[in-house]
Amino acid sequence: MALNILILGDIVGRVGRRGVKEVIPRILEKHMVDFIIANGENAAGGNGLTPEIAQELFAAGINVLTMGNHTWDKKEIFTIINDEARIIRPANYPPGTPGQGYGIFRVNGKNVAVVNLMGRVFMAELDCPFRKMDEILLELQDVDYIIVDFHAEATSEKIALGWYLDGRVSLVFGTHTHVPTADERILPGGTAYITDVGMSGPLNSVIGVKTNLVLQKFLTQMPQRFESASGPYIVSGILVSLTEDGKAENITRIQYIEGE
Amino acid sequence: MALNILILGDIVGRVGRRGVKEVIPRILEKHMVDFIIANGENAAGGNGLTPEIAQELFAAGINVLTMGNHTWDKKEIFTIINDEARIIRPANYPPGTPGQGYGIFRVNGKNVAVVNLMGRVFMAELDCPFRKMDEILLELQDVDYIIVDFHAEATSEKIALGWYLDGRVSLVFGTHTHVPTADERILPGGTAYITDVGMSGPLNSVIGVKTNLVLQKFLTQMPQRFESASGPYIVSGILVSLTEDGKAENITRIQYIEGE
Amino acid sequence: MALNILILGDIVGRVGRRGVKEVIPRILEKHMVDFIIANGENAAGGNGLTPEIAQELFAAGINVLTMGNHTWDKKEIFTIINDEARIIRPANYPPGTPGQGYGIFRVNGKNVAVVNLMGRVFMAELDCPFRKMDEILLELQDVDYIIVDFHAEATSEKIALGWYLDGRVSLVFGTHTHVPTADERILPGGTAYITDVGMSGPLNSVIGVKTNLVLQKFLTQMPQRFESASGPYIVSGILVSLTEDGKAENITRIQYIEGE
Amino acid sequence: MALNILILGDIVGRVGRRGVKEVIPRILEKHMVDFIIANGENAAGGNGLTPEIAQELFAAGINVLTMGNHTWDKKEIFTIINDEARIIRPANYPPGTPGQGYGIFRVNGKNVAVVNLMGRVFMAELDCPFRKMDEILLELQDVDYIIVDFHAEATSEKIALGWYLDGRVSLVFGTHTHVPTADERILPGGTAYITDVGMSGPLNSVIGVKTNLVLQKFLTQMPQRFESASGPYIVSGILVSLTEDGKAENITRIQYIEGE
Ligand SMILES: [Fe+2]
Ligand SMILES: [Fe+2]
Ligand SMILES: [Fe+2]
Ligand SMILES: [Fe+2]
Ligand SMILES: [Fe+2]
Ligand SMILES: [Fe+2]
Ligand SMILES: [Fe+2]
Ligand SMILES: [Fe+2]
Repeated sequence: MALNILILGDIVGRVGRRGVKEVIPRILEKHMVDFIIANGENAAGGNGLTPEIAQELFAAGINVLTMGNHTWDKKEIFTIINDEARIIRPANYPPGTPGQGYGIFRVNGKNVAVVNLMGRVFMAELDCPFRKMDEILLELQDVDYIIVDFHAEATSEKIALGWYLDGRVSLVFGTHTHVPTADERILPGGTAYITDVGMSGPLNSVIGVKTNLVLQKFLTQMPQRFESASGPYIVSGILVSLTEDGKAENITRIQYIEGE
Repeated sequence: MALNILILGDIVGRVGRRGVKEVIPRILEKHMVDFIIANGENAAGGNGLTPEIAQELFAAGINVLTMGNHTWDKKEIFTIINDEARIIRPANYPPGTPGQGYGIFRVNGKNVAVVNLMGRVFMAELDCPFRKMDEILLELQDVDYIIVDFHAEATSEKIALGWYLDGRVSLVFGTHTHVPTADERILPGGTAYITDVGMSGPLNSVIGVKTNLVLQKFLTQMPQRFESASGPYIVSGILVSLTEDGKAENITRIQYIEGE
Repeated sequence: MALNILILGDIVGRVGRRGVKEVIPRILEKHMVDFIIANGENAAGGNGLTPEIAQELFAAGINVLTMGNHTWDKKEIFTIINDEARIIRPANYPPGTPGQGYGIFRVNGKNVAVVNLMGRVFMAELDCPFRKMDEILLELQDVDYIIVDFHAEATSEKIALGWYLDGRVSLVFGTHTHVPTADERILPGGTAYITDVGMSGPLNSVIGVKTNLVLQKFLTQMPQRFESASGPYIVSGILVSLTEDGKAENITRIQYIEGE
Repeated sequence: MALNILILGDIVGRVGRRGVKEVIPRILEKHMVDFIIANGENAAGGNGLTPEIAQELFAAGINVLTMGNHTWDKKEIFTIINDEARIIRPANYPPGTPGQGYGIFRVNGKNVAVVNLMGRVFMAELDCPFRKMDEILLELQDVDYIIVDFHAEATSEKIALGWYLDGRVSLVFGTHTHVPTADERILPGGTAYITDVGMSGPLNSVIGVKTNLVLQKFLTQMPQRFESASGPYIVSGILVSLTEDGKAENITRIQYIEGE
């Protein structure tokens, strides 16, 4: 029996949360879904995650929230990140970092590992995500399915990790750019891959932020206080079907725009 | 009468060139196409463009080649860039740079301007692409259609330029990441937009480069001499239909994989 | 008759302000000084400048405050930056930016221009500082002395500007790294040059910030709220003597450590 | 009995090599020197190091050559880096990297460890230099003196490492910017520190490179083939005296300009 997974990209602010709450039931009506993973690093007002908002998203049916460079933006995160096993922050932060870099979840009698990694190109000065993943794989030898959220900027780093893990994990999906890519495929070794799943957030915005604020930033080069945009949502994600042997047999992009 | 434009992303090396030469006739059989623009910055062995390769691509039916951060990689480019009006390099290089930042082409009795701009986020220290485009628009007031290739890395900068030019140009398409995005749309002001059209190059590669070389770079952090990969091609692009009034009425992604 | 100028580097927070207030009188006792320029971008708690703190520094004898990447950190700056001619922000911000990029001051019957420029390497996406300076020089043809604060990170960009302006201005001094360099010299064309004048701020700190906070940042890669350090000050600067013809005849580093 | 160490910064090309060969004997006439360390990453034509040039520098009296981001620029380095114990490359390259990140040398009956680390801010994606140094210190518990060359760009990262290692090593000196800093001091725990020792290379240049080539790069933003400059040399370095207990009692900057 296959495992069917729904992945939703970076949920941005109030609009993104409304989007996933409205769209998840619609997806579940149409598709078999055993497990839902979403990136939650922008869920609280565009920056970070709070306990209340995490609960709101779990209540909406999301099983695991992955994070990224905005993990620590809301200080309330520190009150739950060590105890809430369903929140996964990038595993290649230094040893001793609060929270966990991966989690193992029981789904339909199978063990599903969810790993979060962060890129280094144009990003943060973290440990090598490639070597960190090698270490983690040693700890995951008895797991049935391994799913990796690679939160990174550069397409080269993301695609390289996909090839590096091909045949060793079930799925590598990218997050962070907030724009879905159209390169979803199953690599020769059986790993499903996509460079970015895109965001769940305000459609008419610049990656979730009010357009005029971002334009002011680019035009003036002066600091701007960014706010999440309002208006209709777009919810972007993928559906992935995995077979008994941990390989992928299907990866399909999905997209819902409010009112369409 | 509408204008139908085919855009092909960064053509990478020999495999990419074989791809566009084989695919363009297949596209022309199925679709009305009045004008073909491709990004040529990686056409010569993955880095730069030579006169011979430019001619090869024009002979394949491409009308205009836009460029990017690899414009100057092959020194032979200097022998043609001032005289070959069909090669357009980023317009926001400093004044006095060889070549031209935009060109005006006669298509079906209409004037079509093609502009190339380069981003600054995670890229080069060029002039502001937003303000440069304002300047160029003053010079293009009598042109019927304006098409912009924004060669840039960050999704925020690319989307911001799309909104900035919405209603002022016919099409803003992104290049440089070599991965097609699935966010093609017509903005409220009538401008067609996509963050990246993706590459025409070797399918099994890291943005066109041999996978093992890129993996060695990430794993060792030591310099690698990158080579374009071989194997089957993927050709990525968009078809855009513009109406008489210069607005877009359709934007559709296309993708051809060799042997599929 | 020569013009003698005292330059003080980035003044960091309360400790830096105490330093310059105590040290300026000691310098004036020992040295002829006609004009004092200091970089004020970190004067208010380490980030930015307020009207009160600007007045405090002018009252301490500083004639002109130059700025940098922290110009806009305190929003109170907007209440004075257009009217207070003694505050100079980087000239290569886009046209329309509040404030002025240079000022002309009357000193001993001579006109002294003070220009502030900001680097682009590892810094902000501003206009080209080299070309911007060419433009400004056209406006300063009748000025007797031209002094440039180049607020930049990379030694290559700073030294390159020094050579570019050699013989065209009286002094190019660098700021921003908060560490004084020992490369002060008079270039062949008569321009005095130093890569960085260093800061006026807390001696036992990391470029002015509490050491343990910066170490936490490097060790954990998690966000830290930086605070200026306390303890004894170091005041770093240069004394420069210019001759009637606008050339430099002497550049000397000075340094005062509290209690020494 | 004290240990007296001479440190010379990045040796740039032919001019830099001529400088150290002429200046070392002059220093040895005036100062007690037990051990000479120089940074060799730019010794071969400005980029990298070859076996011949390494021998030339050892013959000039240099005991150990440290490296940096240009370690791998000349491929001949691979023929000696594993066997030549006197060449030390940054220790925070990934495990498995050719060469060694530190060496232990016998000097006057004492064991002197020389460690090379590279920064990550505006530099390469290496392992954390702070944590890597913690690891190395565990292996150096029986060594008498520990000397660290921190090859890094940002003053904040360099100063932070100085404080981090204060009391744990004898000396932390910076390299890479090619500009000497005037912040040499002995930190409270007894560690001598300087942010950068500066280069040994052509005086009239941009960090060793021909000035007009660097200016062309900044003005045109087009690629330039950089060449080391010719003309008189500047040799920059420090003299450091260490006491029996491994602490520093003196750090003094030295500088020799050809013909002065
Ligand atoms: Fe995000
Ligand atoms: Fe992110
Ligand atoms: Fe490209
Ligand atoms: Fe590119
Ligand atoms: Fe500063
Ligand atoms: Fe600054
Ligand atoms: Fe160097
Ligand atoms: Fe270096």
